Amino acid sequence: MNSFLDFLSEENMSMFTDLYELTMCASYFDNKKFEPATFDLFVRRLPENRSYLLVAGLEQVLLFLKSVKFTEKHLSYLKKQGFDNQFLNHLRNFKFTGDVWAVPEGTVAFPCEPLIRVTAPLIEAQLVETFLLNTVNLQTMIATKASRVVHAAKGKAIIEFGLRREHGIDAGMKVARCSYIAGCQGTSNVLAGMKYGIPVFGTMAHSFVMSFDREIDAFRAFAKTFPNKSTLLIDTYDDIAGAEKAATVAKELEKKGCKLGGVRLDSGDLAEISKKVRALLDEKGLRYVTIFASGDLDEYRIAELLSKGAKIDAFGVGTRMGTSADKPYIDVIYKLCETMNEKANFSPIMKLSEGKVTLPGRKQVFRFKDKKGNLAKDVIALADEKVKGEPLLVKVMENGKVTYNLPSLSEIRAAAQENLSKLPEKYKKLTEAPPYPVELSPALEDMIKKLKSKLTKTEILNSK
Amino acid sequence: MNSFLDFLSEENMSMFTDLYELTMCASYFDNKKFEPATFDLFVRRLPENRSYLLVAGLEQVLLFLKSVKFTEKHLSYLKKQGFDNQFLNHLRNFKFTGDVWAVPEGTVAFPCEPLIRVTAPLIEAQLVETFLLNTVNLQTMIATKASRVVHAAKGKAIIEFGLRREHGIDAGMKVARCSYIAGCQGTSNVLAGMKYGIPVFGTMAHSFVMSFDREIDAFRAFAKTFPNKSTLLIDTYDDIAGAEKAATVAKELEKKGCKLGGVRLDSGDLAEISKKVRALLDEKGLRYVTIFASGDLDEYRIAELLSKGAKIDAFGVGTRMGTSADKPYIDVIYKLCETMNEKANFSPIMKLSEGKVTLPGRKQVFRFKDKKGNLAKDVIALADEKVKGEPLLVKVMENGKVTYNLPSLSEIRAAAQENLSKLPEKYKKLTEAPPYPVELSPALEDMIKKLKSKLTKTEILNSK
Repeated sequence: MNSFLDFLSEENMSMFTDLYELTMCASYFDNKKFEPATFDLFVRRLPENRSYLLVAGLEQVLLFLKSVKFTEKHLSYLKKQGFDNQFLNHLRNFKFTGDVWAVPEGTVAFPCEPLIRVTAPLIEAQLVETFLLNTVNLQTMIATKASRVVHAAKGKAIIEFGLRREHGIDAGMKVARCSYIAGCQGTSNVLAGMKYGIPVFGTMAHSFVMSFDREIDAFRAFAKTFPNKSTLLIDTYDDIAGAEKAATVAKELEKKGCKLGGVRLDSGDLAEISKKVRALLDEKGLRYVTIFASGDLDEYRIAELLSKGAKIDAFGVGTRMGTSADKPYIDVIYKLCETMNEKANFSPIMKLSEGKVTLPGRKQVFRFKDKKGNLAKDVIALADEKVKGEPLLVKVMENGKVTYNLPSLSEIRAAAQENLSKLPEKYKKLTEAPPYPVELSPALEDMIKKLKSKLTKTEILNSK
Repeated sequence: MNSFLDFLSEENMSMFTDLYELTMCASYFDNKKFEPATFDLFVRRLPENRSYLLVAGLEQVLLFLKSVKFTEKHLSYLKKQGFDNQFLNHLRNFKFTGDVWAVPEGTVAFPCEPLIRVTAPLIEAQLVETFLLNTVNLQTMIATKASRVVHAAKGKAIIEFGLRREHGIDAGMKVARCSYIAGCQGTSNVLAGMKYGIPVFGTMAHSFVMSFDREIDAFRAFAKTFPNKSTLLIDTYDDIAGAEKAATVAKELEKKGCKLGGVRLDSGDLAEISKKVRALLDEKGLRYVTIFASGDLDEYRIAELLSKGAKIDAFGVGTRMGTSADKPYIDVIYKLCETMNEKANFSPIMKLSEGKVTLPGRKQVFRFKDKKGNLAKDVIALADEKVKGEPLLVKVMENGKVTYNLPSLSEIRAAAQENLSKLPEKYKKLTEAPPYPVELSPALEDMIKKLKSKLTKTEILNSK
């Protein structure tokens, strides 16, 4: 019982996989299928109310791909699961040697567009699936959600406050990272502050207030410790009574040449209460004291508060953003789109399962902008097609080596802000945004038609 | 860029906290508040459709509490955030020295019941809040959700299949752990299999089928590698055509003295298709070939499938269970319930915030059972009250030392099954289950009444 996080190591990430990746690879190995293949990672359809994706997670994907390996401990466990020695020997020397193209973090993207394209020997490309999906799902989901929250706040600051209800330790870190990419001003997560250099913010909890005999004693004690940057939580017993006491403490601070930072509201009708508290503070000459609000917030509630004229300067947004509570996953998948045939040529493939059809061939996404530089439409085309738009996928790995300069978190954040600023307002509506136009190139359409007809003949009609 | 998981270490968990825990503690330190206090961790209200909680996460909580500490690297970061040297010196020697009582993992519990009760010097008890909430939220949420899925399946096996869309690496591991506690038969997560000894299961993906020229070639190749335990995914092109080919391969296996394990359906109308596939297999004398189903399943869909007479032997349940998609958080909180007054006596406290009232004092939960041993009602009482029921909270730490024999995962799973079997059926309804009776003892009711009246006088009326 000495350790509870030891398994969360880079070394173990080869085993952070669905068993079927390994059973499939064992069968590829057994059947001598070592040829290369291409997989697309993409989002099949957007969650309700979302009209775009803000892509994130590539950095961790690349760090994983360049380091993935199997240790003797892993092989010994797999042997007990019934895998044979020859395959285990193959895994012993396993490394990822493929080529990877990807959409950079902070890019706005849309359904069906490949976000990561992996070309590698079948076993390598297959084995990395689960990690890639897990990483891109969490980070893109949160970056997208947080960008909606930031947009709803119309320039008022959003601080990510959800650590206590995010799904475990890795999620706590990644949510802080992706919320910051999406435009949040900071996080409450101290470890994320230390690891990523994200600004950290914190006020006080009700327990602090309750641990003193009187509320005003708690306020005075906190202001003594942080005379110029206290934010006092005023709703433990009664928010208006709390605001009166905060004002008293603010006046006491003024006498010492200091200034109260703000007050925080965490319950009740935040629109009404914030107006009353603002009036009370203003009346006492405390216009500089800001009002910070938290408590079950998300993009919908923030938009509603602002539309009701709430007097709130900044928002702490927790659980609903940090779990993407209205849709806690995105429909991200990783699908084979070409294999090598017996003549050593790549040949496109697709699946026809009901509602789960995929796009065949090695593809690129081309973006078209209007004269002002705003996003106009995207075209998914074959990678070797000549299309005028700006290609979104860039080469990030060649023969298993990272060929891409990983941008800093600030650079990713700046790219996200630039991308979002070029996305027309109508696509940022919180509900009922129109679909952004994503077209297939004629060559891709043609390939799909031919393949469908061929597969229907060979796989369906012939066996009936 | 060498490491992407280095920060997920036990050593760093002291910093896996909201900044306000540290600002509050700095002020407690500055104001010489070193007295002990008691906090309750509990769930304020149940998510929609849930009528009970299946408690999980205590093991990781205890391992954290016994190891939490600050390193020089942490202190140096905190110094840059403006914390003063005296407080940082205090943190340098920080360790958790408190007493902890808790409800064992695998226990069925209800809203407002303390699940963990921490009595420790204020700074210690406060600093550990975020980690405790994060851990109990994820694990109890998933154990509860998974227990509903298992119940809906009426004895048919559930395999946890959600790794690709669970929220990051830690969640992937904890979901496998808690689903297993809740009664799932296993997981697809290989690392969880290795770490926790949970049985691992895997079939094949569409990409395996697509990587061969013909579907039947893929089936034969897989059956060659796993002649007695293949489950063939039959819906890549057309499920009935796929079932025909699987039957052909099953017959080929029979000639070699082997048996096909099963077929898997992953799309379409699973009730209708499963009936057709069952009939097709039975007609060919393949009654022993099982039908495994997956694809957007949860407790509601499984109940619907079974009510429609689906011929499914086992279910792979992924995203919706692994993210608790219909409610991806529980309203778990950590609230101060007593502090020590100037006479060195513990005195009960509570908060009155709108909709967020807490229960004061050090408490115990007593469970009453009927003659058959089924759960009848719970009573939340003061810890030193004499109440007849069975106390749920047990002592797990004393003076910072773990005094509890951590049960094995199998023992926790067995306890969960025993607990769930004693919960009357009506509380397991997937929707509209009645609330389970949880009462407050007369002494606790009385304490609340007195405190409310006192707080209203001192904190609200006097300042108006």
